[in-house]
Amino acid sequence: MAGSGAAAQRLTRKGMATRRRIVEGAAQEIRERGASGATLDDIRGRTATSKSQIFHYFPGGKEELLLAVAAREAERVLEDQEPHLSDLGTWSAWQDWRDAVVRRYEQQGVNCPLGVLITELGRTTPAAQALTRQLISQWQKALRTGIQRMQDNGAVDRGLDADRTAAAFVAAVQGGVTILMSTGSTTHLEAALDTALTLLRSAA
Amino acid sequence: MAGSGAAAQRLTRKGMATRRRIVEGAAQEIRERGASGATLDDIRGRTATSKSQIFHYFPGGKEELLLAVAAREAERVLEDQEPHLSDLGTWSAWQDWRDAVVRRYEQQGVNCPLGVLITELGRTTPAAQALTRQLISQWQKALRTGIQRMQDNGAVDRGLDADRTAAAFVAAVQGGVTILMSTGSTTHLEAALDTALTLLRSAA
Repeated sequence: MAGSGAAAQRLTRKGMATRRRIVEGAAQEIRERGASGATLDDIRGRTATSKSQIFHYFPGGKEELLLAVAAREAERVLEDQEPHLSDLGTWSAWQDWRDAVVRRYEQQGVNCPLGVLITELGRTTPAAQALTRQLISQWQKALRTGIQRMQDNGAVDRGLDADRTAAAFVAAVQGGVTILMSTGSTTHLEAALDTALTLLRSAA
Repeated sequence: MAGSGAAAQRLTRKGMATRRRIVEGAAQEIRERGASGATLDDIRGRTATSKSQIFHYFPGGKEELLLAVAAREAERVLEDQEPHLSDLGTWSAWQDWRDAVVRRYEQQGVNCPLGVLITELGRTTPAAQALTRQLISQWQKALRTGIQRMQDNGAVDRGLDADRTAAAFVAAVQGGVTILMSTGSTTHLEAALDTALTLLRSAA
């Protein structure tokens, strides 16, 4: 994602596979040890790569690698909502998506791998903000597409602002997850999702 | 709030005033310098108190003081929503509350004083969790009372689950503010609040 496009284009297929292996290994290491606890040596050991390989793919060192891992974790946020997120054309698909989101964050519990990385990178740094903005924008677009499909097939009134409602859904999930991370309970996440879904259903 | 009740009861009126002055001064210092940047010496200087006074009121030292400041910032989250939050008996009061919340967080921008303190104390520590839970619970209760008043005066259907809808409102604000802290924009906060309000209005 953010910033990885240009660099990735210059890599061979084999190079891209190596880069991906380093990112996935680093992601695993960081999930286990935290972003400040995971050293480049640990990551090299786990991914069976040399120091020069790491710096070949991530010339900016650990910070650049952390950013790539954060981008990967952001992708995973959306991947974990599939196949439902790309299939929001019926009420049962919306319900399945809602259930998948609750299950995903229930399993994740109080620790958010992406949040850990964003905090380590510095939440207000341009790189972290760009990444967060891109995730929010992609997520909102996927939900907006779903709402528009419901409008196209006549299940939801066309008068509803699809983009604004999608923004409310993203905020609902974000707020519910933030509270879950403090309380350990999915109550608020479920209440927020169900309230947004009730509104969508009432705009029939 | 959390943990301060028993200690405060043993203080004289003058002692309570001194304790409050230390907490308010420390809150100001932390808002300016961050929780790790503000030293006990800075706080002593700003509040014109001695080392022994600080340790008299906060025997646990800086950590105990940070917790008291976090409790004060949590109170302020609710205070800043007044007089609207305690007056949610009409639609115009709900609209005024919604506008006050957006304005409050727009002014606050990307830095959340309470969030900074909770991060410094350790989000998953029992003390920080107790404090967060209490804030969420008080906030939800105030909103639930408002929804029940709307039900009592016939503006909202009694079939609506007041507590669950209040939970959705709290999550909506939390999510909108979290996104605002990353993007600098109130778009999601406003969309989330308006969606929750639309649901409330549609349950007439």
